[in-house]
Amino acid sequence: MCNDITDIEGNTFNGRLMIMDYCITTRKDNSWYIGTEQFNSKIADKTEAIMFQGNGYFGIRASAEERQLGEKRNMFVSGTFDAFSDEVTELPNLPDILNMEIKIDGQMLCLKDGQVKNYHKGLNMKNGELIRHFDWIINGKQVGFKFSRFISMDDVHLFVSKLEIMSNRDDLNIQIQSGIDGQQSNSGTQHLIEGNKRLFEDKYIQMQEKSQQSGIDFVFNVFHRTYIDEVLLNVKPHMKMGRRQIFGNYEINLPKKQRFTLIKYSNIYTSIDSDVEQEKLSETSISDLKEACLSNYVELLNKSAKSWQNNIWQRSYVKISSEDVKPQVAINFARYQLAANTPPDSRMNIGAKGITGEGYKGHTFWDTEIFMLPYYIFTMPEIARNLLKYRYLGLEGAHKKAKSNGYEGAQFPWEMAWPTDGETTPLWGSADIVTGRAMKIWSGFIEQHVTSDIAIAVMEYLHASGDQEFAEEMGNEIILDAAKFWSSRLEYDQDRDRYEITNVIGPDEYKEHADNNAFTNYTASWCIKQAVEITDMLRFKNPALYEKLNNKLKLDTVYQDWMSRMDMIYLPQPNEDLIIPQDDKYLGREKIDVAHYQSNDKVSDIFKEYNLAQINQLQITKQADVLLLLFLFENLYDKNVRKANWDYYEPKTTHDSSLSPSTHSILANDLKLDEKAYRFFEQACETDLGTHVGKAEKGLHMAALGGIWNIVVEGFGGVRIVGGKLRIQPHLPQSWDGLQYQINWQGSLLKISVNHEKMQVEILGDSIEFINHDKTYQVPANSKIEVMAPLVEV
Amino acid sequence: MCNDITDIEGNTFNGRLMIMDYCITTRKDNSWYIGTEQFNSKIADKTEAIMFQGNGYFGIRASAEERQLGEKRNMFVSGTFDAFSDEVTELPNLPDILNMEIKIDGQMLCLKDGQVKNYHKGLNMKNGELIRHFDWIINGKQVGFKFSRFISMDDVHLFVSKLEIMSNRDDLNIQIQSGIDGQQSNSGTQHLIEGNKRLFEDKYIQMQEKSQQSGIDFVFNVFHRTYIDEVLLNVKPHMKMGRRQIFGNYEINLPKKQRFTLIKYSNIYTSIDSDVEQEKLSETSISDLKEACLSNYVELLNKSAKSWQNNIWQRSYVKISSEDVKPQVAINFARYQLAANTPPDSRMNIGAKGITGEGYKGHTFWDTEIFMLPYYIFTMPEIARNLLKYRYLGLEGAHKKAKSNGYEGAQFPWEMAWPTDGETTPLWGSADIVTGRAMKIWSGFIEQHVTSDIAIAVMEYLHASGDQEFAEEMGNEIILDAAKFWSSRLEYDQDRDRYEITNVIGPDEYKEHADNNAFTNYTASWCIKQAVEITDMLRFKNPALYEKLNNKLKLDTVYQDWMSRMDMIYLPQPNEDLIIPQDDKYLGREKIDVAHYQSNDKVSDIFKEYNLAQINQLQITKQADVLLLLFLFENLYDKNVRKANWDYYEPKTTHDSSLSPSTHSILANDLKLDEKAYRFFEQACETDLGTHVGKAEKGLHMAALGGIWNIVVEGFGGVRIVGGKLRIQPHLPQSWDGLQYQINWQGSLLKISVNHEKMQVEILGDSIEFINHDKTYQVPANSKIEVMAPLVEV
Repeated sequence: MCNDITDIEGNTFNGRLMIMDYCITTRKDNSWYIGTEQFNSKIADKTEAIMFQGNGYFGIRASAEERQLGEKRNMFVSGTFDAFSDEVTELPNLPDILNMEIKIDGQMLCLKDGQVKNYHKGLNMKNGELIRHFDWIINGKQVGFKFSRFISMDDVHLFVSKLEIMSNRDDLNIQIQSGIDGQQSNSGTQHLIEGNKRLFEDKYIQMQEKSQQSGIDFVFNVFHRTYIDEVLLNVKPHMKMGRRQIFGNYEINLPKKQRFTLIKYSNIYTSIDSDVEQEKLSETSISDLKEACLSNYVELLNKSAKSWQNNIWQRSYVKISSEDVKPQVAINFARYQLAANTPPDSRMNIGAKGITGEGYKGHTFWDTEIFMLPYYIFTMPEIARNLLKYRYLGLEGAHKKAKSNGYEGAQFPWEMAWPTDGETTPLWGSADIVTGRAMKIWSGFIEQHVTSDIAIAVMEYLHASGDQEFAEEMGNEIILDAAKFWSSRLEYDQDRDRYEITNVIGPDEYKEHADNNAFTNYTASWCIKQAVEITDMLRFKNPALYEKLNNKLKLDTVYQDWMSRMDMIYLPQPNEDLIIPQDDKYLGREKIDVAHYQSNDKVSDIFKEYNLAQINQLQITKQADVLLLLFLFENLYDKNVRKANWDYYEPKTTHDSSLSPSTHSILANDLKLDEKAYRFFEQACETDLGTHVGKAEKGLHMAALGGIWNIVVEGFGGVRIVGGKLRIQPHLPQSWDGLQYQINWQGSLLKISVNHEKMQVEILGDSIEFINHDKTYQVPANSKIEVMAPLVEV
Repeated sequence: MCNDITDIEGNTFNGRLMIMDYCITTRKDNSWYIGTEQFNSKIADKTEAIMFQGNGYFGIRASAEERQLGEKRNMFVSGTFDAFSDEVTELPNLPDILNMEIKIDGQMLCLKDGQVKNYHKGLNMKNGELIRHFDWIINGKQVGFKFSRFISMDDVHLFVSKLEIMSNRDDLNIQIQSGIDGQQSNSGTQHLIEGNKRLFEDKYIQMQEKSQQSGIDFVFNVFHRTYIDEVLLNVKPHMKMGRRQIFGNYEINLPKKQRFTLIKYSNIYTSIDSDVEQEKLSETSISDLKEACLSNYVELLNKSAKSWQNNIWQRSYVKISSEDVKPQVAINFARYQLAANTPPDSRMNIGAKGITGEGYKGHTFWDTEIFMLPYYIFTMPEIARNLLKYRYLGLEGAHKKAKSNGYEGAQFPWEMAWPTDGETTPLWGSADIVTGRAMKIWSGFIEQHVTSDIAIAVMEYLHASGDQEFAEEMGNEIILDAAKFWSSRLEYDQDRDRYEITNVIGPDEYKEHADNNAFTNYTASWCIKQAVEITDMLRFKNPALYEKLNNKLKLDTVYQDWMSRMDMIYLPQPNEDLIIPQDDKYLGREKIDVAHYQSNDKVSDIFKEYNLAQINQLQITKQADVLLLLFLFENLYDKNVRKANWDYYEPKTTHDSSLSPSTHSILANDLKLDEKAYRFFEQACETDLGTHVGKAEKGLHMAALGGIWNIVVEGFGGVRIVGGKLRIQPHLPQSWDGLQYQINWQGSLLKISVNHEKMQVEILGDSIEFINHDKTYQVPANSKIEVMAPLVEV
């Protein structure tokens, strides 16, 4: 199905199919590019998702300007949650500002009509620009189209797009309808109430809307500027309003060999924006649009590109030296999408699918803390801080959840939206194949490890940043409050004189009502011990803060509980084969061969053969569970236990979660299972960039993107926090010649350069120390050192 | 663009383009058929609307089973109004039960891919069956498809569709996903809350939903049965549930030359159905579906066809003898769509666009009383009674409206939905081209003649039916209450010592704040006089009822007002040129040439050149206004006045309302302007069946359909109620040889047969009398008489 690959100028070049195949292409000499040279409705969803554009404040899928069958036109503004009826809150799919309905000589542009030649759609991740161009042969005329667009990283409200049309041989009559189309919905669910639609000064198109339940005001503005060649046209749009729609209509007669250009400047503001006065939304947004319109497309694009360069690429620098451009494309893609999907506001967080699709409703899961936060902790600590502050702002909801379940302290929501929304996990999921009934989603009730995960992330952040202010204002409180929950959650078993945690879901979501899930018990225990340490420290070092927190949390009382219980929590121990039981019943369950489900293509087949109740009874694991525990708490057990558990659990794991490959890759790399490590790295990269077309409809897998960085920097690059200390112990894949990256540690910037022989660590800032193969290295301020790789490792 | 026309069997036949062109075809020898032989997305909307299927209870547009770009998938159940946020109530667009997603060898059926041959889509109005078939050439295989479907006129909840696939040369892998898709909305507005989705007994698919504000429960059920050739397959669907979606998936390997058949049985129930217990919606609907599934497609179709024959075609019999099949197609189309869109429940009425599209939100206007009721009064009086009872049930809302405007009595809503909703006219319409702002819709406030129109229709019904029971239970009260409103509405002008009605919109909606609109003043005056007559009659003949109504309406008091005011209402008189001024200012306004707007293609051009405020200042009329008055109240003025006003107003009328042509046709026929009369008849027929593709998107024009029958039977057929008496005075178009029709009068059935020489009137039932050319004829019970046409008429 793939034609020869040609670049924007039409020259054939040496691109090759890579991670991606199925007509998604990269370019050997350009690690910032992903594209496709084939108009193919089968991959429409896929390209919409992976070429998503955003700046964290808002984002738009890479749908075509003209309507196409099977498309998912999505635009979301981070944090604008709303509830329809009694459903859980979600991000409303906002009015479409992308739309252009184009007619050539009266014939509507539709790539399934006529003939399409020289089709190209490509994303330049470096500057965030998406370009689509093609020749459309219709009714005997060959018409060249080029669409360009970007979401500004410099002015977060701004979206600019450009349409160019020309024909070398024919005069054209061009009709264009473009404006704001508010008929979008979330798969049929409508959150927005139609507000005013206006035309200001004969040219600025405005639509206002309001979310039904949360009452957020939205303002959308559009302005068009048209040219023939370089000559500005003075055409006034003929307005058309429909239900939830306002469009400008243009009609132009274009002589052959001349180029028609339309620039569409759009912006978006909401009443929860922190940079605008609520009462002045309409005027501010119009005057900002006017301001933007003083610059042309290229000037605005350049400003945005500069912001990408300074704020993202420079700070998260990673360079992979390899024959294959693929790993560098993947790490660029991961950083691009993380930046495009991370809101610049601590009242918001990263959704499991960011703002790239409707999947998971924009909700935040433990994905942020365990899979995405390492990237931000090490590269942009202030963003990591924002993301954790969000959890602090969510304490009220966490208290409410704990209380409603009969517990104390902070039980964090499994799914979290606006901080005060509390638990937002839907009650019902898709159909059970056996009974035909929708299945209850238990995660919101019993997938409780998220509370530990948040505590773990807070500690990692505090270790890496040394941010004492955050610790005092928020961090300590989060951990103490989490420990308070865990302490109240423990169940005393009289017979065995121990505390247990029954009826939970661990990271392995196949096991829905597990007793003593190892991951849950160990991390709960860790959390309580951490709280005891913090309490002891505060009493000693900061009695004022202790008193404040004591007043809030009744530490005096709860500390007694912690002390009396923490050593009596049941922590499943390795058995004679060194295997840590995932839960009380796991090791006794029936085994089946999961090998044929392990390929990414087949993994969902398991649900065609078994329903969830049946899978519950089998020794199958969805994703790293015991192994995740051993990765996060490396000091718990020695390498032998890690290896034995790897050998036991990995073959029973379907990896039917995009969270699974990164942990497995890093762990395999630690265990020197080099091929496995690289295969899981590829699997992480393939989660979105791979051949699985169907999955992209609902959005990208943000945790897998964080996982790509984790594998590269924490895995191959060897960066790890162990016992609160920095360890840098790289182990590169054979196919890589070298790796350069930078991380922040305790306020200093470390530039690390690794190859198979040695590692160089350069410090910009104060002196730091790190561990490498059990040896501690001191690096003086603003200096560099080299560490040779050990010849043989055991 | 049109290929040769071939019929279902593939034979070329002598069809020709008729009223319809642009690839919509009729067949010379079949007045029950409309179809198209061309797959053309430009006419998708058009065919969706004109091939609409319904039974009054519910209806579905003729969208394709597979999704197509630009389609409007609409299904409405009459009367199920709901309000989104603070918008006015409208009919929710219901889940799509039509959908079938079909893959052949993995390639999704899309008629824009591959090649399409022998395309045909046609509606058989006689039995209500829609058939679409074509050959799809894809990936080297030629695959024959045939889709058939109908909505049952026998079991109003039932919809049955059939898919047949075969290939003569190739084995096929067929995948089908079919079920219930609740992601539909009203142009982005969602009324329905997602409820349970279930599979019963491994085969019955059910979705429940509830309307947000009105709380109506909906239940949708689907069952599939599959065959290869005649052999029933025993395949269990693989279920797929998504948001608002539940589908069964089927995969079949079909050997060449065998035929795959899928029958989809669906039904719909709501909690406002009068034939089901609310608590048993789900079980009743499933058990009724099981019952239906005992019959095959043809058996169920035949039952439905029988119901069409007995309940519609037989009772509204009209036969036009003409070389041209076109008029008969049009009258069949009008009767088909009226039946498909008239709810069988007096709590509901006919929407301005029926249930054929989102236009006018399913609301009822004066269109029913003035343009559709004559058809029902004369052919199915019990339905006319239902439609008027709806207004009686709306009295409470009419009282509320009067009161909120400072008036007394019953001021009927300009737009009416559920009877107790009161006024449902939206406040805002589309954009003003000059200011860019949405325009206020004044009709709900000042288009007040609807109250008279309802009174007029009540009197017509009472005259025609002699339904004394209705008069006593509802009819008298409606008229008295309407008169009470009018009396309170009158404004006393001291200088002229007369009552006026200022600031209204008359039938001509171009004039938004008219004073003393002739139509309004005359009909208000008539209404009050009618009320006086009724009051006098009741006091004399039925004092008990008088007392009852007096208690309700305070007749004793209001009667005094009527008596003192009724002769002092200003009724604009013909001037020296015999012209009745449409309103106080009309005759003094600027005149422009409207000839070039009068063609149906150009009429909306006027709004590109003038805005409504400017049109207000011109001597232009949108539709019959003074002329409608002269048609409805023929006895007011003599023929000279009618002719003078015709000559004055018709050239100033743009006919930019589908209500206009029928009145003009009948009046022209009365005035012996034969060519004009026929041209307006054609224009009425062309409203939906003509070349205006764009207009059909939002639905058919029900009043224009009523108008077709009115022209044929009231115009050419000469049936009129004049001064409460029946007049039958035909005047056939030159191109017609004859006309046969039947009407009901005072409980008797009249079969009338007309040609250019004579008329035969046959009575089934009691003796009746009628007027013809000022002569009264008595027809004895169960007999027939002949009346010769006068040789020359003045």
